[in-house]
Amino acid sequence: MSGKAVLLLSGGLDSATVLYWARRRRFEIHPLFFDYGQRHLRERRAAVRLARLNGLELRVVRIRFPWGGSSLLEAGRELPDSAPEAIGRSIPSTYVPARNLVFLAHALSGAEALGAGSILIGANSLDYSGYPDCRPEFYRAFNRVARLGTRAGVEGRPVRVVTPLLRLSKSGIIRLGTRLGVPYQFTWSCYAGGRRPCGRCESCRLRARGFAGAGRTDPLLDDGGPD
Amino acid sequence: MSGKAVLLLSGGLDSATVLYWARRRRFEIHPLFFDYGQRHLRERRAAVRLARLNGLELRVVRIRFPWGGSSLLEAGRELPDSAPEAIGRSIPSTYVPARNLVFLAHALSGAEALGAGSILIGANSLDYSGYPDCRPEFYRAFNRVARLGTRAGVEGRPVRVVTPLLRLSKSGIIRLGTRLGVPYQFTWSCYAGGRRPCGRCESCRLRARGFAGAGRTDPLLDDGGPD
Repeated sequence: MSGKAVLLLSGGLDSATVLYWARRRRFEIHPLFFDYGQRHLRERRAAVRLARLNGLELRVVRIRFPWGGSSLLEAGRELPDSAPEAIGRSIPSTYVPARNLVFLAHALSGAEALGAGSILIGANSLDYSGYPDCRPEFYRAFNRVARLGTRAGVEGRPVRVVTPLLRLSKSGIIRLGTRLGVPYQFTWSCYAGGRRPCGRCESCRLRARGFAGAGRTDPLLDDGGPD
Repeated sequence: MSGKAVLLLSGGLDSATVLYWARRRRFEIHPLFFDYGQRHLRERRAAVRLARLNGLELRVVRIRFPWGGSSLLEAGRELPDSAPEAIGRSIPSTYVPARNLVFLAHALSGAEALGAGSILIGANSLDYSGYPDCRPEFYRAFNRVARLGTRAGVEGRPVRVVTPLLRLSKSGIIRLGTRLGVPYQFTWSCYAGGRRPCGRCESCRLRARGFAGAGRTDPLLDDGGPD
């Protein structure tokens, strides 16, 4: 499996790992960033940098979720201060309605227009079991839609979503990425988007747990930990 | 079946018919228009007018298909001059990669955020069999994605796509709409978007065939036919 692929590159550590995984597999990578009204632009800066480091041009697609419905989108709304044991138990307030489907639909349109056979996404179901659109059955169902709903699918060249991290834990992803040489100091995970990671949001906690589990120090925090 | 519904209102005759169908069924209707870089704004004006006539506020979502891949999106590209017998035989150049999936994904996000149980779309498979994303199996597959990929679905209140026109011919739709009192003079179908319909594009030809089959005169052309 390789060839042309659209890569959803968010600037976080998962999609950065998929970028280096795809390079190793010699995909012709077309990275895509969604500006969807996130609270901050740290992720975008990270995605631009990761693409540039690899000689790739990042395409930015602007999307709005005008109905809101997520603490990730509403500046006044408090981000959940997640206790590690609560992560994955229920659907958190950071869930954005149908977000991954919207991303995948746009990526599918792009893949079909570019003649790409794959959409690469860094979804993983273990640490994000609270998000319905991170589960394997969702991606299987999406592949069916992609096959039935596009010219490429009808003509026997369906675009498929590829989820290389789907069944890995955060530590497993970091171990894989470390072998692949992912520069994790250039990735960004914190939902809050301050000068430095907050260390308290769900995403910071998962990242910290991942580095701890992999027995590594997070290079982003190398000079003394979060604020 | 009724309750709150997001309606994809394009300004064409199919979605206008669904609007009046939904009114009759007492849905609380949230109409949605996609500005996706169409060649002209006639459709949007028609959608605004149809919504206003029904005391509804039209929400406009701006989307871009930056990869192109369709004669509907590329101003310099010629629109197909469809012979009626060719319609539906192959995928026309007006096909926009994964367009309906992109629309449905955004509508699903809105429906979930608004607490709506349905997405209403005027897709029909008979006259548009050339478009893979107008076929019943595509909508069935989409409903599975919507159930698996959203909080509403996981919690047992899935949003469902409702396609009341799916198995109707254009004449059947016009007969239904005429009974429902659809003001077809305010709908717009022509791909070209001149002052008056061109009469030659696929969409004009389907419309003309539909009115002829229903034994009615198109009120949009009442003063003497297309330019």
